[in-house]
Amino acid sequence: MQDQAVADVTHKDMANAIRALAMDAVQKANSGHPGMPMGMADVATVLFTQFLKFDAAHPEWPDRDRFVLSAGHGSMLLYALLYLTGYPDMDIGEIERFRQLGARTAGHPEYGHAPGIETTTGPLGQGIGNAVGMALAERLQNAHYGDDIVSHFTYCLAGDGCLMEGISQEAISFAGHLKLGRLIVLFDDNQISIDGSTDLAVSDDQLQRFGASGWHTAAVDGHDAEAVALAIENARNVTDQPSIIACRTVIGYGAPNKQGTSSTHGSPLGDEEIAGAREALGWPHPPFVVPDEILAVWREAGQRNRAAFDRWTEAAGKLDADERTHLVDPVDTKVAAAISEAVAGIKADFAAEGAKLATRQSSQKVLERLVPVVPGLVGGSADLTGSVGTLTKQHGIVKTGDFSGNYIHYGVREHAMGAAMNGMALHGGIVPYSGTFLVFSDYCRPAIRLSALMEQRVVYVMTHDSIGLGEDGPTHQPVEQLAALRAIPNLNVMRPADSVECAECWDIALKSKSSPAIMTLTRQGLPLLRTAPTNENLCAKGAYVLIEPDGARDVTLLATGSEVSLAVEAAKLLGGEGVNAAVVSMPCWELFEAQEPAYKDAVLGSAPRVGVEAAVEFGWQEWLGPKGAFVGMRGFGASAPAGELYKHFGITPEAVAAAARELIV
Amino acid sequence: MQDQAVADVTHKDMANAIRALAMDAVQKANSGHPGMPMGMADVATVLFTQFLKFDAAHPEWPDRDRFVLSAGHGSMLLYALLYLTGYPDMDIGEIERFRQLGARTAGHPEYGHAPGIETTTGPLGQGIGNAVGMALAERLQNAHYGDDIVSHFTYCLAGDGCLMEGISQEAISFAGHLKLGRLIVLFDDNQISIDGSTDLAVSDDQLQRFGASGWHTAAVDGHDAEAVALAIENARNVTDQPSIIACRTVIGYGAPNKQGTSSTHGSPLGDEEIAGAREALGWPHPPFVVPDEILAVWREAGQRNRAAFDRWTEAAGKLDADERTHLVDPVDTKVAAAISEAVAGIKADFAAEGAKLATRQSSQKVLERLVPVVPGLVGGSADLTGSVGTLTKQHGIVKTGDFSGNYIHYGVREHAMGAAMNGMALHGGIVPYSGTFLVFSDYCRPAIRLSALMEQRVVYVMTHDSIGLGEDGPTHQPVEQLAALRAIPNLNVMRPADSVECAECWDIALKSKSSPAIMTLTRQGLPLLRTAPTNENLCAKGAYVLIEPDGARDVTLLATGSEVSLAVEAAKLLGGEGVNAAVVSMPCWELFEAQEPAYKDAVLGSAPRVGVEAAVEFGWQEWLGPKGAFVGMRGFGASAPAGELYKHFGITPEAVAAAARELIV
Repeated sequence: MQDQAVADVTHKDMANAIRALAMDAVQKANSGHPGMPMGMADVATVLFTQFLKFDAAHPEWPDRDRFVLSAGHGSMLLYALLYLTGYPDMDIGEIERFRQLGARTAGHPEYGHAPGIETTTGPLGQGIGNAVGMALAERLQNAHYGDDIVSHFTYCLAGDGCLMEGISQEAISFAGHLKLGRLIVLFDDNQISIDGSTDLAVSDDQLQRFGASGWHTAAVDGHDAEAVALAIENARNVTDQPSIIACRTVIGYGAPNKQGTSSTHGSPLGDEEIAGAREALGWPHPPFVVPDEILAVWREAGQRNRAAFDRWTEAAGKLDADERTHLVDPVDTKVAAAISEAVAGIKADFAAEGAKLATRQSSQKVLERLVPVVPGLVGGSADLTGSVGTLTKQHGIVKTGDFSGNYIHYGVREHAMGAAMNGMALHGGIVPYSGTFLVFSDYCRPAIRLSALMEQRVVYVMTHDSIGLGEDGPTHQPVEQLAALRAIPNLNVMRPADSVECAECWDIALKSKSSPAIMTLTRQGLPLLRTAPTNENLCAKGAYVLIEPDGARDVTLLATGSEVSLAVEAAKLLGGEGVNAAVVSMPCWELFEAQEPAYKDAVLGSAPRVGVEAAVEFGWQEWLGPKGAFVGMRGFGASAPAGELYKHFGITPEAVAAAARELIV
Repeated sequence: MQDQAVADVTHKDMANAIRALAMDAVQKANSGHPGMPMGMADVATVLFTQFLKFDAAHPEWPDRDRFVLSAGHGSMLLYALLYLTGYPDMDIGEIERFRQLGARTAGHPEYGHAPGIETTTGPLGQGIGNAVGMALAERLQNAHYGDDIVSHFTYCLAGDGCLMEGISQEAISFAGHLKLGRLIVLFDDNQISIDGSTDLAVSDDQLQRFGASGWHTAAVDGHDAEAVALAIENARNVTDQPSIIACRTVIGYGAPNKQGTSSTHGSPLGDEEIAGAREALGWPHPPFVVPDEILAVWREAGQRNRAAFDRWTEAAGKLDADERTHLVDPVDTKVAAAISEAVAGIKADFAAEGAKLATRQSSQKVLERLVPVVPGLVGGSADLTGSVGTLTKQHGIVKTGDFSGNYIHYGVREHAMGAAMNGMALHGGIVPYSGTFLVFSDYCRPAIRLSALMEQRVVYVMTHDSIGLGEDGPTHQPVEQLAALRAIPNLNVMRPADSVECAECWDIALKSKSSPAIMTLTRQGLPLLRTAPTNENLCAKGAYVLIEPDGARDVTLLATGSEVSLAVEAAKLLGGEGVNAAVVSMPCWELFEAQEPAYKDAVLGSAPRVGVEAAVEFGWQEWLGPKGAFVGMRGFGASAPAGELYKHFGITPEAVAAAARELIV
């Protein structure tokens, strides 16, 4: 390649490289979304060549700017950028294998598939929530590590679809409240949705809406590179407000007949239209070929922050070794040991005190011990702080302009809370947990699913986990949420039976680096069952024998959470009649599932089984066996004091004993 | 009582009656939320005595104004109003039994518990979505019936919590787009949330935000009755924009020490504080006693629209009898018969044509026949119209200012779509259905749950129901959603195996007045399996034997939807080896569950069973028996063409046959 040729490469050439790769990859896959990458190619080129702080050779640089493609269907934009700037693992072969089995270039960006993919997106609006979490994580880490170590921007590309989803409002409102000035949203204002013009369904003045939440706003022609650059520069200079730049673009820019229409959104353009686009764009090169001189300029952009990276490396080298580790991995071996010690201590205290506590209270006591030993442990709640026990005396509150704390008032925004926690976990250095009522897991379920899919350590504290919630009634009483959450792959749904189990479940949750956890906790007080002290984490196997009768089992009672104590009572009743009942506590089905068959068989036993849970039976059949019985809910709950509800719905020791008797006869 | 005493009753007396009932009922229950009713008592008094068109003696008046208490935790406000205005079934005893088992006065308003409770609220933000649906239903019915029959307002009382939830933005944006001028939101602007001052978590300029979506906005002192009345009057006069009135109130108004603080939000005030409030408010009367003269004025207000009701009754009397029925009940006996006929016709056509169709296509063809015969059948989609097949040639599009159509572009707003459909169904006269991808059922799950809890006929069309979606990948491929939906009580989750089953499922969904339905449909084409024509609705029993082998069964293959054809292929493979395999199609587990044991036993048989579904196994154990096998998904999907994914994940006729062989050996 010649230097002159390189010097002649224009912004337009570089943006067209993205457009061509996008339309050609979608065409070859015969599936995908060319419209957004072609429309946003100019904006992305400006961002990646002039502003985004990254080094393609060091994609894990902790202080890199984060780029979140919230409009994940435009995945080819990201893949093209990663290829062009020279990220590892993203060669042209991957671009050609777009959307094929085993390719890194999945239909939507999948976290973990390739360096540079900061988060999994596609479900609309999630990326905005992730970006808010990342921008918040940056400020939290900055408060701890200072400007030399943590000081970066978070950019988020979002479309009309993202902005129509309710989660976007929660995220926008939350970010505006916290004045996350290093968050910049690039809005692909193409005025086209899948059904056609956005006029069909939306008339919002988006900038006014963002302005109402305290954002800095700007609007530019998204194909005017200089205007885009100026707008980004201005946004970066506004440090006390998050920024949105509405980039007016033409979807499918360059496609002679289809540009500006919804037909470019989610389908290949077709060979003829692509030929026309090549002509219109002035891109005569064959599919998947980017001329050397253009690629060279892109690759150069991929290394343009090398000096900054080197400076950062030097600064980071001066950090204490533990601090350096915790910058990205808060739970290293040393911290894991400290967690074990703290948990052992509180277990011993719980056993010694023998107090009747709601598990939401036990959880708070456990957190009281854990907050000081886990760096980056950041709590919060969706406006139910007092109810869910997520705040301890060890916490400082995160406030607008003061990010030295470690507790977040997320507001009544469960969905953005989940998405922000995902972003914080993805950012690195943070172990986020936060709470609401279990029934409202439904409000953040898409975010929970993404925690699981992305294998992120995010802990959802979900209290008031049954009809034990009482008077608030069926709208607030979960009956199907346990089943619905257990159905999600790679999610540890934990339902501790008492204080000791609660401590053990926290131990598991914090050490599970690749799985999120749901801590389902009671509103009502529960007796201490685990009175015999042990350092072993009995919950780690998911289920274990809590009571083994003298003599062969006549029946095995399986229960979780608040119903384990009912099973224990039932076992006593049965024991009084000479019936040998074992009690098995099953705090985490997923972990039990993963045990060896021999262990599972031993725990479950061969006697008839009765399942007890104040929830629907759905899913329990796996454990009950052919002759099993179930004591639980048959439908929605009701409004009344909790004790009355347990009686009303027949979830009592007497009912469990009766069910057992029927099986034995 | 004396006329003079009645004449002396002031606005303040009337509002205080609400306050006293609220604080006393919460105190007696020792549970509940006094703050909101006490804060909004003035606004509610103005609304119910001067504006709300209702007649307490005729709570089912179809043209009544709708009042939605979106801030459902303030349920005592509603119960007090119903009691004071003289609604049936709401005597003082019910108020005294607040939050007790069997009372009509549940912790949150429960639809069906008493006349005047227009919807179940409590999960925040849902009521705003319901109200938007009701206001839309009003316009749709108005376009058909005219002003004399349908012409009413919808009022919605919402708090900070409602406005923080993302669903509120979707609903606000949608209502603003459609210019629903007869929707008036009364915002309880008390600046207090559960965690404390709203300053902790939110800084939005709410009126600017609503303004950005085209709403008329106003702000008033919520304790100034005249100002409130003027603002409501103004809002009513703005007919081409929905309106929000921010009512600045003091939460717990009247409680001398606690008012204006979060401590009044969700706990009893305590005897001492209540005594102080009595004094401060000038309400010396004992708990649950409303002086006759004050009650008389309230009761008078409850009948003040009697003349309007009589005029309406006269006008409605002139309607054609069918039209009169369909105003509230679109699927009467006659229409049910027409549905049966249309379904029989399309089933015969499907059988005759024998085409390979995706069930989303079959569904569209079925709708093509149903739209003309079901009055009030209103379709829509969350910006996936072309993909989900919800629009037919029979539809007209509902547009801003033109409500003569019957198809709605909901935008990318799944959650508000669900809540609006609930509102439309609750309003009466509308059978709403609408579509998105099955994986996005997670985005509207709280609304689906409320459809089920409220027993409303709402049909969710959920397509792309498995890895058969293909290249879009795991973010868009449902694997756990079928299980998660099946776990919800009173929800018919239907997964038809071919065109004929699809028609039968629609027949069931439209005739199920008290259950919502999920129609899960394929993206990919499916062969016709039900080639033998029958008028019987085989899906109505939830599961049935599709193929019974000659001779005793060696194995029974159980499958749903797109996997039934795989089971049929597997049965052929097995048959070639002399293995007798039955195939059972299970389009709706919930309906099958409800059958007599004898039927279920006959269908399931005593041979070993193999379950086949391109989803997680969770929940299948109920049907598989102790020695059963399952062929399906073990985790999340992947991005690739659908056919390759089925092979990759081992969901093939060969795999099913192999699983069967293993069971038999």
